[in-house]
Amino acid sequence: MSTSIARRIALAARPKGKPQSSDFRLEEMPIPAPGPGQVLLGVQYLSLDPYMRGRMDDRKSYVKPVQVGDAMPGENIARVLASNNPKYALGDVVTSQTGWVTHALSDGTGLRKLDPQQKPITTALGVLGMPGFTAYSGLLTIGKPKAGETVVVAAASGPVGSLVGQLAKIVGARAVGIAGGPEKCAYVKNELGFDAAIDHRAADMPAQLAAACPKGIDVYFENVGGAIWQGVLPLLNKFARVPVCGIIAHYNDEKASADEDRLPATMREILTRSLTLRGFINFEFADQIPQFYREVSAWIAEGRVKYREDIVDGLENAPTAFMGLLEGRNFGKLIVRVDSSAP
Amino acid sequence: MSTSIARRIALAARPKGKPQSSDFRLEEMPIPAPGPGQVLLGVQYLSLDPYMRGRMDDRKSYVKPVQVGDAMPGENIARVLASNNPKYALGDVVTSQTGWVTHALSDGTGLRKLDPQQKPITTALGVLGMPGFTAYSGLLTIGKPKAGETVVVAAASGPVGSLVGQLAKIVGARAVGIAGGPEKCAYVKNELGFDAAIDHRAADMPAQLAAACPKGIDVYFENVGGAIWQGVLPLLNKFARVPVCGIIAHYNDEKASADEDRLPATMREILTRSLTLRGFINFEFADQIPQFYREVSAWIAEGRVKYREDIVDGLENAPTAFMGLLEGRNFGKLIVRVDSSAP
Repeated sequence: MSTSIARRIALAARPKGKPQSSDFRLEEMPIPAPGPGQVLLGVQYLSLDPYMRGRMDDRKSYVKPVQVGDAMPGENIARVLASNNPKYALGDVVTSQTGWVTHALSDGTGLRKLDPQQKPITTALGVLGMPGFTAYSGLLTIGKPKAGETVVVAAASGPVGSLVGQLAKIVGARAVGIAGGPEKCAYVKNELGFDAAIDHRAADMPAQLAAACPKGIDVYFENVGGAIWQGVLPLLNKFARVPVCGIIAHYNDEKASADEDRLPATMREILTRSLTLRGFINFEFADQIPQFYREVSAWIAEGRVKYREDIVDGLENAPTAFMGLLEGRNFGKLIVRVDSSAP
Repeated sequence: MSTSIARRIALAARPKGKPQSSDFRLEEMPIPAPGPGQVLLGVQYLSLDPYMRGRMDDRKSYVKPVQVGDAMPGENIARVLASNNPKYALGDVVTSQTGWVTHALSDGTGLRKLDPQQKPITTALGVLGMPGFTAYSGLLTIGKPKAGETVVVAAASGPVGSLVGQLAKIVGARAVGIAGGPEKCAYVKNELGFDAAIDHRAADMPAQLAAACPKGIDVYFENVGGAIWQGVLPLLNKFARVPVCGIIAHYNDEKASADEDRLPATMREILTRSLTLRGFINFEFADQIPQFYREVSAWIAEGRVKYREDIVDGLENAPTAFMGLLEGRNFGKLIVRVDSSAP
């Protein structure tokens, strides 16, 4: 950090539908001094994730919404710049939940020390962080794919979807990914090794998906909703499992669409095909974290798990990058390099 | 049987929306003679159940639809009137899947011998039959209610709902029933011992339901859908379980309602409250049947489980009774006495 000014991105207004630049505000302030028991954190990397859209609304969820005027929330990687806390030394690198900021004070709550030898350190926000663990816990604990079954996931080039499909392959299942555009589809199939990749922008997406799933779908890892769910629903096999991780297609909905009520059709399929839908948030399964690190780290080392990061420079660019994330404009785990000198 | 003529109710036309009298046809024919290995069954009682509505549509479900011109399907209690099958003797009483008929031939497939001492024998179609087992398996295996939790069920005076609530009480949970009209509500609360009963016809049903569930809902046994689901959804607790057994409110839907899409709101709650929705059909859990008979029979004998039957006389009245069932006009398990001399 070469500056003595701290910066942060605050929620300026609750979005109506799609977030706009005016919903965010860049603010400057003096770098604060740590009090007794506190550390001063210098943020190096900020994770941008779809769930943040939900936190911008004044709606009860598994965590409280952000208040207008507060910093946007989220996980970051930070270095300890000063410490009055015996548990943290100058130079320690941690993940923290201090949001879209360049600097933050912390009493240590929610900090997790990282091994600075972990290369790249940004994996702590992606394949070896919350998105990776979401894929791991949701797929294996709720989806329970078996060898020979078919697993479908959308946003398949993203940090959650890419690991879902690769884990499906590791357990011997068929992995079918849905992604936006030919470049992402080629990556999903050729680099990540999915059995098939479908472009959700194709007019005949439902027919392509059906062709890619000749034995139906046994596990659909839901992180999108909308038209993709409508394409998946008729293909779900009896006893199919649907871990519900996100519905990004609906995060910008201001109110219910007025065209038709699709709920009865979904309930009818749940009923007649004995489907299981199960919502989850990764921290329900926190006891699996050590096993997750051990297994996924080993698979990365063996080349069985690949990942891709999309790194944007500068905290001031976080709002635009985040708005792009909700449109699928990122390619890989979206991370903001907050400190230009970060390794 | 005092007649030499057999009668049956055939599907005359596929209903458009609500079934009408003209969708059914009463047919007469000579009583058939059993061939080698066959028995002749004289039907005493016919079970009428909401699932039959689904069988009338040309739509794939867990079983094939009825063909136009075929007898309406369903389970009945029958007596063996003649037998060329060494496994069945004259006078044996069985349940059979031969539908809305006075007489049928069977090679024994799907027959289950009843103990003629079982009194009343009609319980084999209700509390000790398919509806009872549906309640038992769905609630205990999927709903998994724990002492102190709150269980909600609609159609609470019916054969499934009434047992769901009474089983909830047996495991120490709070049971809240939803039923149509003050008479059914009084029965649910005073006779069946639910903690509360809500009239779904009340304009403030959602508010009454919320008041009856001060600690939210942990298990909602879904057999209705529609407005009741909309009332239940905001009250579901984190990790609530929803066995999906039926959606009678939608069985007459010809096409999706055009007012608004309620699916995203349901998916959002599944996601943020880690809900489990699981469709089922009782025969998935067939291995639990012996335990079901043993336990529920004992609870009936001890007075811990009560039941109510609504018996209509005459096969010719089955269509009207069935149309009433879809409107909630029955009060208790709906059964047609096909043979007026049946015990």
